[in-house]
Amino acid sequence: MKILVLSSGGVDSTTCLALAVKEAGPENVFSLSIYYGQKHDKELEAARAVAAYYGVAHQELDLAVIFADSNCSLLKQSSEEIPKESYARQLSGTEGTVSTYVPFRNGLFLSCAASVALSRGCEKILYGAHADDAAGAAYPDCSVQFVEAMNRAITEGTGNQLRLEAPFVSVSKAEVVRTGLALKVPYELTWSCYEGGKTPCCRCGTCIDRIEAFRANGVEDPLLKEV
Amino acid sequence: MKILVLSSGGVDSTTCLALAVKEAGPENVFSLSIYYGQKHDKELEAARAVAAYYGVAHQELDLAVIFADSNCSLLKQSSEEIPKESYARQLSGTEGTVSTYVPFRNGLFLSCAASVALSRGCEKILYGAHADDAAGAAYPDCSVQFVEAMNRAITEGTGNQLRLEAPFVSVSKAEVVRTGLALKVPYELTWSCYEGGKTPCCRCGTCIDRIEAFRANGVEDPLLKEV
Repeated sequence: MKILVLSSGGVDSTTCLALAVKEAGPENVFSLSIYYGQKHDKELEAARAVAAYYGVAHQELDLAVIFADSNCSLLKQSSEEIPKESYARQLSGTEGTVSTYVPFRNGLFLSCAASVALSRGCEKILYGAHADDAAGAAYPDCSVQFVEAMNRAITEGTGNQLRLEAPFVSVSKAEVVRTGLALKVPYELTWSCYEGGKTPCCRCGTCIDRIEAFRANGVEDPLLKEV
Repeated sequence: MKILVLSSGGVDSTTCLALAVKEAGPENVFSLSIYYGQKHDKELEAARAVAAYYGVAHQELDLAVIFADSNCSLLKQSSEEIPKESYARQLSGTEGTVSTYVPFRNGLFLSCAASVALSRGCEKILYGAHADDAAGAAYPDCSVQFVEAMNRAITEGTGNQLRLEAPFVSVSKAEVVRTGLALKVPYELTWSCYEGGKTPCCRCGTCIDRIEAFRANGVEDPLLKEV
């Protein structure tokens, strides 16, 4: 069994990578990371470090041109600031997605992953979506419904050669961290903060989520020990 | 209503473009074409000519790097020859897809189309899949099941901002041509042949399909008048 893991260098996909290595061995795992014009392209360095730690083959793709016309606040060309509050607060009283939603980003990334996975003889893609990201429609491309539809599109569109699994799609980020701590995931190598500064800003949506996920497990985020 | 049409420069997507222009007017239609390392990149010139004919905005993306590890016979790097027979004959006695199936290509293209469409405020993507391409599992990413799943992934993953339509997914290529002839589609500007030579080879799977589709309508393919 060969497995491709869509890796952002963050907590969730790194935990997926640990699961894949445990299941198939590092020689049968491929890590794929994508640059899409994100301000925090520092996460790509984290994805590289994590792949090196696990000894798995790593590939990067540059798809920034696809988002050239988007004004999503996560992108370098955007004039919008990245909000400094939780997703729940950002969504309060509004309809639709948060300003850091990149248009159909995860659908695009999973499709890329499917094309690459098939070329490399993989039978499975692992995707680190979890329930907190989908909550309140913050990121609709992290929902159970989306994952189910995308899995069906991938199995149908490849003639049943490949399938998609999102092991954390129904659980919280705290549960992801709990799984990862048991697997001794090197979270000190990962990166989440949207700002991409020297240290995490601790105020953007993903920082808030990450801090709470570690706190719920009674441990300190190793990245914050250095702050 | 703004519409994005995934345009290959061939018969099916050009007919979709004609439908979109009829529905929304050329100022509300966007054409998107993708280079993916195909031997017949001549089709991109056709897509440009068709977009210019209809006066719609046209964009091209280069995604060849995603298929760098594929040995699909349609790709420039492949050592395999493009088969010189119909899809039905290629599939006879075998399981799975034809050698010109590019790994999850149409899923990837539709995901790109979704990202671009959302950035440009489109509500709909038109996709020219038809029943002959899906027949016998030649191209599983042209099937009704795939289109339904992909539509669901796009609507779910974009928070219902966008949907996918494949108006010809249940009809033959002959029916596509019948629709296009009624709309006076400039088929002389289109290109289908996988070989990408000066004139159509008339022997590859897509040439055979195209010739039969025009013949079934009692007209000659305008491209063949010049051969």
